[in-house]
Amino acid sequence: MIKMIALYKQPKDQAAFDEHYKNVHTPITEKIPGLKKMEVTKIIGSPMGKSEYYLLCEMYYESQDAFKAAMKSDEAKASGKDVMSFAGDIVTMMIGEEVNE
Amino acid sequence: MIKMIALYKQPKDQAAFDEHYKNVHTPITEKIPGLKKMEVTKIIGSPMGKSEYYLLCEMYYESQDAFKAAMKSDEAKASGKDVMSFAGDIVTMMIGEEVNE
Repeated sequence: MIKMIALYKQPKDQAAFDEHYKNVHTPITEKIPGLKKMEVTKIIGSPMGKSEYYLLCEMYYESQDAFKAAMKSDEAKASGKDVMSFAGDIVTMMIGEEVNE
Repeated sequence: MIKMIALYKQPKDQAAFDEHYKNVHTPITEKIPGLKKMEVTKIIGSPMGKSEYYLLCEMYYESQDAFKAAMKSDEAKASGKDVMSFAGDIVTMMIGEEVNE
């Protein structure tokens, strides 16, 4: 599986972030064709106490081809544009491939 | 589910990192009591091209209680000590809670 990973640092306004993430960003992102699964993890700390990070979102695709096709869609472009509008300064995007153990 | 998340930046010596990760670190970590699942993702890029990150490892526990008990074990201490020995300068550790959608 291929995943798009979005790692967000602590937002300045947590309530506004949560509201936008849930009511605007998630509905846009869920429409991306080929998206298999979306796993959202709230960061609650680190072994040292606090964490500078707030949220980790992993969006799974079946294959490299499915991922590439998805990224070309209008829905993915809308999702990318939206994330930059509300979290451009705190998000790190990564593309990952699951390692089969 | 609660997860321990380890996010590694690009190692200076990738072959040495891979060798230690696979043959030393994974076997130690897999012994942590209560560990349900370990999901390893190789970072292959970002939407902008390259990524400064190399590997994401997620270690799942059933509950907060199971996680806390696990962290007190000798096995978790050995895993933490090992990670600091070979990747202390490139790893970010986070504790996360899965968000139920």
